[in-house]
Amino acid sequence: MNPIGPINALYPMPTTLVGATVNDKPNFLTVAHVGILNHGTPQYLSIGLGKIHYSNAGIKENRAFSICLPSEDLIVETDYCGIVTGKKSDKAALFDIFYGELKKAPMICQCKVNMELRLHDVLDFSTHDVFIGEVVQTYADGSVLTNGKIDLAKLKPLLFDMASTKYWRLGPPIGDCWKIGKSLKKVVK
Amino acid sequence: MNPIGPINALYPMPTTLVGATVNDKPNFLTVAHVGILNHGTPQYLSIGLGKIHYSNAGIKENRAFSICLPSEDLIVETDYCGIVTGKKSDKAALFDIFYGELKKAPMICQCKVNMELRLHDVLDFSTHDVFIGEVVQTYADGSVLTNGKIDLAKLKPLLFDMASTKYWRLGPPIGDCWKIGKSLKKVVK
Repeated sequence: MNPIGPINALYPMPTTLVGATVNDKPNFLTVAHVGILNHGTPQYLSIGLGKIHYSNAGIKENRAFSICLPSEDLIVETDYCGIVTGKKSDKAALFDIFYGELKKAPMICQCKVNMELRLHDVLDFSTHDVFIGEVVQTYADGSVLTNGKIDLAKLKPLLFDMASTKYWRLGPPIGDCWKIGKSLKKVVK
Repeated sequence: MNPIGPINALYPMPTTLVGATVNDKPNFLTVAHVGILNHGTPQYLSIGLGKIHYSNAGIKENRAFSICLPSEDLIVETDYCGIVTGKKSDKAALFDIFYGELKKAPMICQCKVNMELRLHDVLDFSTHDVFIGEVVQTYADGSVLTNGKIDLAKLKPLLFDMASTKYWRLGPPIGDCWKIGKSLKKVVK
């Protein structure tokens, strides 16, 4: 086992498009440095945005943002939203947009799953604002649901990896959680 | 687009084994509610642990934990570590263990990638402790490296999804980040 330096190896992560209202207009930013903070209601998620980004001020002002999940068919648009800045480019023009309860969290019709979040807190790191949001509502296209639940095999999410700087496809399910490990209960005391 | 309630749809996430020293003994807990908070040095990651878990007190006491990345071949052991509690079971006996600089963050020889983290902060949510750690050192087996970097195709991580309660395999890379979207620069103003 070789030390390779204090490298962040926590990949792949889901690639998301974060929506915000900035200067009264919708903007979208590609974000894969995301997190799940708890499991329950209210449900809190985090997004880590470099302070240089255009969206940060809008999220703070409106206390709302969205996390939209692009599928494989949006790989070009998703990558584009991580290359250009909303300061100079109207990225929202790429998509058809809708709003939910919060009115200031733009979401994307072309994304099969969208979450709107109320800003709960901001963690102030030296180079990054970590926005903690509470999920207020989740919207899903019927085409990605199986028995009312989001089906990742239908969603075809884009997974991000920093080491390769590539988007990866999800493979098939390979085992049941809280089940496949039960066989060890008989073996280990 | 149908509202489906305030569902957390931020999946799949990497399945990890979190190591901690609890009552002077190593313990491991399966955690997929993780997050990347920033990108840089120091590098901060988060893990969200329900307050009922056995490891929380040990992480607070020793101010250290590890994030170990199990591959597909450890699916049974990984699931087991999410089913049984360290209060009653010596889960560390499943693995060969090593320590790095922090001495109190046990890591797993059978995991091809391990990170040791210094506790930076704890966010106190009603049901969860969110532990924010700084990556102090990362250890990787040579078999999962390509040109010195972690190669996910070799690592074969276990990806967790709550909706299906299954572990999923990673598929192949399908596009280059900060590159595949450049074609839109010519189209969008």
